[in-house]
Amino acid sequence: MQTNPGWALHTDKYQITMMYAHWKNGSHHQRKVFDLYFRKLPFGNGFAVFAGLERAVQYLENLRFTEEDLRYLAEQPERYDPAFLDLLRGFRFTGDVYGMKEGTLIFPNEPLLRLEGNVIELQLIETALLNFIGYQTLVATKAARLRTVAEEDVLLEFGTRRAQETDAAVWGARAAYLAGFDGTSNLRAGEQFGIPTSGTHSHAWVQDFDSELEAFRAFTRAFPERSVLLVDTYDTLKSGVPHAIQVGLELREQGHELAGIRLDSGDLAYLSKEARKMLDEAGLTNTRIIASSDLDEETLLNLKSQGARIDAWGVGTRLITAYDQPALGAVYKLVARHRNGEWIPSIKISSNPEKVTTPGRKTVYRIIDRKTNKARGDLITPADQVLDEDRPLTLFHPVHTYRKKKVRDFRAINLLEPIFEDGKRVYDLPTLSEVRKYHREQRSLFWEEYLRQLNPEEYPVDLSDELWETKQELIRNIYRQIREENGK
Amino acid sequence: MQTNPGWALHTDKYQITMMYAHWKNGSHHQRKVFDLYFRKLPFGNGFAVFAGLERAVQYLENLRFTEEDLRYLAEQPERYDPAFLDLLRGFRFTGDVYGMKEGTLIFPNEPLLRLEGNVIELQLIETALLNFIGYQTLVATKAARLRTVAEEDVLLEFGTRRAQETDAAVWGARAAYLAGFDGTSNLRAGEQFGIPTSGTHSHAWVQDFDSELEAFRAFTRAFPERSVLLVDTYDTLKSGVPHAIQVGLELREQGHELAGIRLDSGDLAYLSKEARKMLDEAGLTNTRIIASSDLDEETLLNLKSQGARIDAWGVGTRLITAYDQPALGAVYKLVARHRNGEWIPSIKISSNPEKVTTPGRKTVYRIIDRKTNKARGDLITPADQVLDEDRPLTLFHPVHTYRKKKVRDFRAINLLEPIFEDGKRVYDLPTLSEVRKYHREQRSLFWEEYLRQLNPEEYPVDLSDELWETKQELIRNIYRQIREENGK
Repeated sequence: MQTNPGWALHTDKYQITMMYAHWKNGSHHQRKVFDLYFRKLPFGNGFAVFAGLERAVQYLENLRFTEEDLRYLAEQPERYDPAFLDLLRGFRFTGDVYGMKEGTLIFPNEPLLRLEGNVIELQLIETALLNFIGYQTLVATKAARLRTVAEEDVLLEFGTRRAQETDAAVWGARAAYLAGFDGTSNLRAGEQFGIPTSGTHSHAWVQDFDSELEAFRAFTRAFPERSVLLVDTYDTLKSGVPHAIQVGLELREQGHELAGIRLDSGDLAYLSKEARKMLDEAGLTNTRIIASSDLDEETLLNLKSQGARIDAWGVGTRLITAYDQPALGAVYKLVARHRNGEWIPSIKISSNPEKVTTPGRKTVYRIIDRKTNKARGDLITPADQVLDEDRPLTLFHPVHTYRKKKVRDFRAINLLEPIFEDGKRVYDLPTLSEVRKYHREQRSLFWEEYLRQLNPEEYPVDLSDELWETKQELIRNIYRQIREENGK
Repeated sequence: MQTNPGWALHTDKYQITMMYAHWKNGSHHQRKVFDLYFRKLPFGNGFAVFAGLERAVQYLENLRFTEEDLRYLAEQPERYDPAFLDLLRGFRFTGDVYGMKEGTLIFPNEPLLRLEGNVIELQLIETALLNFIGYQTLVATKAARLRTVAEEDVLLEFGTRRAQETDAAVWGARAAYLAGFDGTSNLRAGEQFGIPTSGTHSHAWVQDFDSELEAFRAFTRAFPERSVLLVDTYDTLKSGVPHAIQVGLELREQGHELAGIRLDSGDLAYLSKEARKMLDEAGLTNTRIIASSDLDEETLLNLKSQGARIDAWGVGTRLITAYDQPALGAVYKLVARHRNGEWIPSIKISSNPEKVTTPGRKTVYRIIDRKTNKARGDLITPADQVLDEDRPLTLFHPVHTYRKKKVRDFRAINLLEPIFEDGKRVYDLPTLSEVRKYHREQRSLFWEEYLRQLNPEEYPVDLSDELWETKQELIRNIYRQIREENGK
């Protein structure tokens, strides 16, 4: 059904343009380093949750130009040299990738992926990696916020119909699950990833019978132990709940329990409290109440604070589209190039200071206090720097450099794992359950102040002295050069 | 590369649940009618642009359960009867579909698709249809807003890296193009749909050389006639533009013209005016200026009103994610069921009055004034009603019924075309160029008041007398029944 079976053209044209220009220039085999990262936390959250690595790995392992792709490129007005298209015919990803594990708590300006290899390979893959990781990280982060607010309640992802096309539905469901959701309504996500799936019935089921009561009876005949009845087709408290109770009592006579009712409109705080009372008075204390109706972390928090009696939350549109901020804005920047046997750090200046890149091959250490087992901050260092855990470490803020602290008795975890070496995968992809478990463990390394949903504390992400100095020096050099050229 | 080659599980679990309950109940072959529509215009726009039909047609034609899908379902805790899974093994879509043409201007509460068939088929497809049509219609509508503001300027879709996963990038590019964009950076969209593609180079290209000048020279060697140089890597006016001019003059000596420069940050109004002046003073009057930097219709309108000298606009994130409203909220509702040889209209009540459905098999007529060739309003009627163009027609507002008008000398266009009959496609999908052309023609049928980007007039969408009466009667009946059951 996929019209185009290949991945190679899931990219922006300018990548091919640059690849061609490098090839014409004879520079296509030069080695470079790119960082993939984001600049600003979404949703006012205190952290983001890294997701998208599994998809990125599949992509890099299967990246080929099909003959159809090459025919298409040959017909373009750029009239690419056929020898260049032959090069693409043999294209494989042969580079090195270092990456965070999915489920890791991540912060602005930290390299989430560091990619090293031939420039034409690293250009081609930019767009797809940003596309996968940007979206999945966004949804995982939103899901983590919902988990914070929902505490121990059941959270279900119900967004497929409102997702931005097919892939978003599946990968969004996976991202939500890894960051703490309990299930999804999306069956492809169930099939592909083993995520528990759940689903009840719609208003159409009820409309389809001559009465609501008859509709509920017919449904429970099919699923005597697993029926969740949608009670708002006509009138929740006057029709839906009384009919559900009647059917629940009939079920009990047959030795079954009504699993639940679902509220999908109206004042969920009031309706859930009234429905709970009516169910309890009828003795249906095991029947759970599920709510779904344009929910997000704000409404969920509000409903809980009003004492809503809701056991499980179905979250759709606002999670799967990351409604309040539907793009992460991840970027992919050249940070070093290889010349005459050594890595030359590279910088991009901008009139927006937060868009100036941090040059050089880098890694990220998470500094964990051994006494509390809590994270003190992250430190970005040159890639090959080994932190000596026996010496005290000074962390300082990369912009407000007067903000300093000294850390002793810590362990330093290098967050960037080798994923590919020379194009070969060297990382065993964990199962999705392992990713979930890892995410929960990672969360537990952070103080509550960083995790809360509103106005969290800023978690420190610092640059090592050496990186900070290199960055300042490169900025100075570039401005000196511009001044000289402008004759001042 | 697609892990799951089938489409059938691109759905919510509750569809399978209801299909199974219908099968257990023996009601799975009963015929129903469902409408797909939306309730509220996005972005404060005065109209939406229908898109997603081609994708929906491909889906319905290819809808099958794979053996892998059936194995997955067999393992579910619901323990579906194997005879039901056998039924799914032979599943084909055999229903009737009536739909709007892609590119049609559409309005709230109009059936965009009317689907008639066996209930289990119509349930299965609900989720996928909402997913395709909701997203593509949203992006096409956003693109139409940008086209309104951009007037005759070139508009390019640059959003792939920020799209919500892979499919959104491709189908979003197509939706943007059909509603008036001129091209995309997405190469799969170019390959699959023949959309013109464009792309230049990134900051990495510039950083990759020892100087910006050298980077520009190397790039123009590869594309002497098609180079657009990105001028903001270091400093737009002090470094980027002067270097581009130098290379443009060198190109001219070789008999070529520098195609353009691209601005990607900073004050685009100021920078574009200064850059235009510098280019013109150097005699590079043919070199165009392209802008890209978190653009949407608001920034575009603002920049144009400030006299920005921008010839082409690259729009990314805010178009491809429909940033200010990332979901259309389309719905799919049962409106009639077949019993004893006739269609019984069906309604869903809600405590939100705008969520009450309009019952019955319906179609939509667009009433065009023959003198002005402009649309006077749309009229929703029973599906088989034929409008007599020789008799004056009274239109009235379905909520504020005192708002009436009489229309004479009109033609009435039935907007719902037969797409499938008994599961066979009876509609020839137009080419994408034809869809674009059709959309432009449709736009020209509307007065400017409905098309403007801010505070448009509300276009009238009215119900026929018969539909209005049926709806009121069904509402009365349901409330009477609820009162009787509650003993009042």
